[in-house]
Amino acid sequence: MTEHSEYPTALGVSSAERIMLFGQDLAADLIGKVSFGHLAYQLITLSPPSRQQARVFEAVLVALADHGFTPTAIAARLTYLSAPDSVQGALAAGLLGGGSRFLGVSEETGTFLAEALSNSDPLPDTDAAWDELARAAVTARRAAGGFVPGLGHHLHKHIDPRVAVLVGVAREEDQYGPHLALFEAIGRVSPEILGKSLPLNGAGMCGAMLADLGIPLGILRGVVLLARCAGLLGHIAEEMRNPVAREIFNDVESHAVYRPAE
Amino acid sequence: MTEHSEYPTALGVSSAERIMLFGQDLAADLIGKVSFGHLAYQLITLSPPSRQQARVFEAVLVALADHGFTPTAIAARLTYLSAPDSVQGALAAGLLGGGSRFLGVSEETGTFLAEALSNSDPLPDTDAAWDELARAAVTARRAAGGFVPGLGHHLHKHIDPRVAVLVGVAREEDQYGPHLALFEAIGRVSPEILGKSLPLNGAGMCGAMLADLGIPLGILRGVVLLARCAGLLGHIAEEMRNPVAREIFNDVESHAVYRPAE
Amino acid sequence: MTEHSEYPTALGVSSAERIMLFGQDLAADLIGKVSFGHLAYQLITLSPPSRQQARVFEAVLVALADHGFTPTAIAARLTYLSAPDSVQGALAAGLLGGGSRFLGVSEETGTFLAEALSNSDPLPDTDAAWDELARAAVTARRAAGGFVPGLGHHLHKHIDPRVAVLVGVAREEDQYGPHLALFEAIGRVSPEILGKSLPLNGAGMCGAMLADLGIPLGILRGVVLLARCAGLLGHIAEEMRNPVAREIFNDVESHAVYRPAE
Amino acid sequence: MTEHSEYPTALGVSSAERIMLFGQDLAADLIGKVSFGHLAYQLITLSPPSRQQARVFEAVLVALADHGFTPTAIAARLTYLSAPDSVQGALAAGLLGGGSRFLGVSEETGTFLAEALSNSDPLPDTDAAWDELARAAVTARRAAGGFVPGLGHHLHKHIDPRVAVLVGVAREEDQYGPHLALFEAIGRVSPEILGKSLPLNGAGMCGAMLADLGIPLGILRGVVLLARCAGLLGHIAEEMRNPVAREIFNDVESHAVYRPAE
Repeated sequence: MTEHSEYPTALGVSSAERIMLFGQDLAADLIGKVSFGHLAYQLITLSPPSRQQARVFEAVLVALADHGFTPTAIAARLTYLSAPDSVQGALAAGLLGGGSRFLGVSEETGTFLAEALSNSDPLPDTDAAWDELARAAVTARRAAGGFVPGLGHHLHKHIDPRVAVLVGVAREEDQYGPHLALFEAIGRVSPEILGKSLPLNGAGMCGAMLADLGIPLGILRGVVLLARCAGLLGHIAEEMRNPVAREIFNDVESHAVYRPAE
Repeated sequence: MTEHSEYPTALGVSSAERIMLFGQDLAADLIGKVSFGHLAYQLITLSPPSRQQARVFEAVLVALADHGFTPTAIAARLTYLSAPDSVQGALAAGLLGGGSRFLGVSEETGTFLAEALSNSDPLPDTDAAWDELARAAVTARRAAGGFVPGLGHHLHKHIDPRVAVLVGVAREEDQYGPHLALFEAIGRVSPEILGKSLPLNGAGMCGAMLADLGIPLGILRGVVLLARCAGLLGHIAEEMRNPVAREIFNDVESHAVYRPAE
Repeated sequence: MTEHSEYPTALGVSSAERIMLFGQDLAADLIGKVSFGHLAYQLITLSPPSRQQARVFEAVLVALADHGFTPTAIAARLTYLSAPDSVQGALAAGLLGGGSRFLGVSEETGTFLAEALSNSDPLPDTDAAWDELARAAVTARRAAGGFVPGLGHHLHKHIDPRVAVLVGVAREEDQYGPHLALFEAIGRVSPEILGKSLPLNGAGMCGAMLADLGIPLGILRGVVLLARCAGLLGHIAEEMRNPVAREIFNDVESHAVYRPAE
Repeated sequence: MTEHSEYPTALGVSSAERIMLFGQDLAADLIGKVSFGHLAYQLITLSPPSRQQARVFEAVLVALADHGFTPTAIAARLTYLSAPDSVQGALAAGLLGGGSRFLGVSEETGTFLAEALSNSDPLPDTDAAWDELARAAVTARRAAGGFVPGLGHHLHKHIDPRVAVLVGVAREEDQYGPHLALFEAIGRVSPEILGKSLPLNGAGMCGAMLADLGIPLGILRGVVLLARCAGLLGHIAEEMRNPVAREIFNDVESHAVYRPAE
């Protein structure tokens, strides 16, 4: 037996009588008093959201929760088919698709916007100035061979129906900040620079809004995963009621063909 | 190229212009209009919760979100230490602990209560009758060599501070149903049968409440995982701010000793 | 700072100069001297396998490594599509399908056989006596409403091509033990009891062989997962070379249809 | 019902009578005839390894299989503690730590070496010329603000005991290629450039060897994960025999202290 470190935390510690979270009493101050979205915001940022921030945060979670038969939803269903004894495994399998290509768009957009904003001091104060900043950011990203995150959607080719509603909520709640302003400016200037019109997509919009809400960029993907967690549970619950995963598996297996590598 | 099955779903399908969920328009009907907890309930059950059901459901999610340095939180932090490039991996690693021993209590309690209720027709209508049903259920479980789920807590040995508050919310919102009634009766009768006093625990209480809310038993563990998802994000975000996982790893590694198997 | 437990292990501990595994020197005694299959056997059982045991163990791993487009392989590919930055996530997603339905057959078969053997003392010593024990085990399982694991295959309806080869290897290496004897007897007697002919399948055969090799039943599924790990890496590597996951996703998404729950 | 794509694969396809892998008959050509390491190499590269390549590949797998109480092993044990019903979950949780910091070293080293080699045409043919290339590569990486992968180890501060043995196996089997030559040269020149002596570590050495074996760089981390899979099963099996995870959890939980964020 030897000495042992202490592990400090600003989250929860419990005694026999009380469960504390951020110095608040879970039973007396939080259960039944705040929404789950409110608590999630505070768990991530340590600060309780204002009523306005909470509404915007919940709107983002609602917007991101489900997208039908995405690769992650299909993976969760196939995993449930294989291992119906482990709901946690099916859920985890679905969340593991939360990487750079599909669920990562919000984080990439937030990060892209934050970098561009950090190069602008003071911030623009007219639409024209925002457009100029947007033009510089998009042009620089293109020159570096990268793509601009938050534009385009494989289904919603002309307009992503979530975008206008989300902007509206942010405005109503006075949470329209510089990330959103820059993102909307990118939407205005990108057609002339890219030579084609790509709509702002919902995932990118959510990234801009979360950045304006003060969610740290490094955990921004985590918010998307929390939202998607609810959607994946919907798919797993449906797989319990009306399964389709075996049919998907059969369709894939029966269309496999052997083609040797060259 | 050959024929292909259709994959029916009662969740979401999208066209170029619209994203539909349960036949509702995501942008027009849901974003900014319902809370994330409301949407999660509907994703799982397909029915929109009443205002009362939503409040109880959110109270349960809040109660289950975090428990400090649980095995799952530690696993998530260690995974983030090893693979900081993959927040989804750290989150998934934490959720994978959502099995029979820790996070599974809510599901086991809900299932245990539902089985006992299914043997009682009509349902009891007095406290004495509830006590009798509880006595029969506990006695039968003990006779079968099993343990009664939802009783006892390794820290909260006398009382789990969440329990009374949760019951209060359920009563306020008129969501106090037969699972809760039976669970409270078990709390009353178990000392005499078990020969020791084990308090009702919060996880079991949440299981009873979710069962009364109509969450299917098979997905009940999933609700706990959704709640825990928020808590795990809190731990990962804290690991980004003030890491302790390396210290935990060092403490464990430096106290490893070789002891050959007999 | 306070006192700290020690954590005993019969596996590895390292000093600045040496890495020890089971009391052997990793560099001097193991690297380049034993196969990976040999080491895996020893990691699981703590005993070094004989040359014969190692060959049977490796044969089982080879037999279980890949099965084409299984649900787990498809889930791994879809996860790689979504998160190509995280090979570990794609692999983990695939392994999470290692549950009761697909990859669990080996464990279930090993457990079923071990239970039946534990009721037979002494063990049978003639084919007729083995058949009698098999008949009793199959009949009891059927009477209990369960199904007999290790029988039947959705593709190999008449004969699973791995079975005879695996039995041959076990016989050659003198590793044909009671689990295998009982499993083969089940193959002989099951048609008369079940009223239809279901071939012994490879997964069940591997379960019987692993049980005869002394792999603890509780970790038997882990051996299957180790084998499948290699197959999943094959699928992920192929997804890097010649991807099909996006096509699978597109095919599923484009055949989704909304059908409200009744 | 509509048309359906085909999914080509160079791995396995099965008919009712046969299971084919890479055009070989699994039962007739592979089971009992090749080692698991051999098959894993072929699953990843599609080419059967020579006897020499197979021995080097297996030596690497053996070298990487276990490292005692690593963060990944601890995470797997804690997950098993929480969810003992799901071995696959505990294994997956452990593998999810296979990211950039711990298990990623082999991949980073292989990639770093391959990039440096791609800038050298023809390849060096003397030790002095290798040293020059090494010096250029290390200096460039340092100038770019990056660190040189494959150097240093938190425990093996002077020498990693695996390194010399691994080099020996590669030489014996005539698999000592340019990645290894450059890696050894880095070991020679790095002290003068870095101003301190950091030993080549085993993980980096394995990366160099795997690159020389022709493993594609993108899947190189996957080989490490396969090796670690065996080690993690060892930890899970030990957790079944002589658990320590609850003690680890208790030690951490009892040393948690609340410290509010500033």
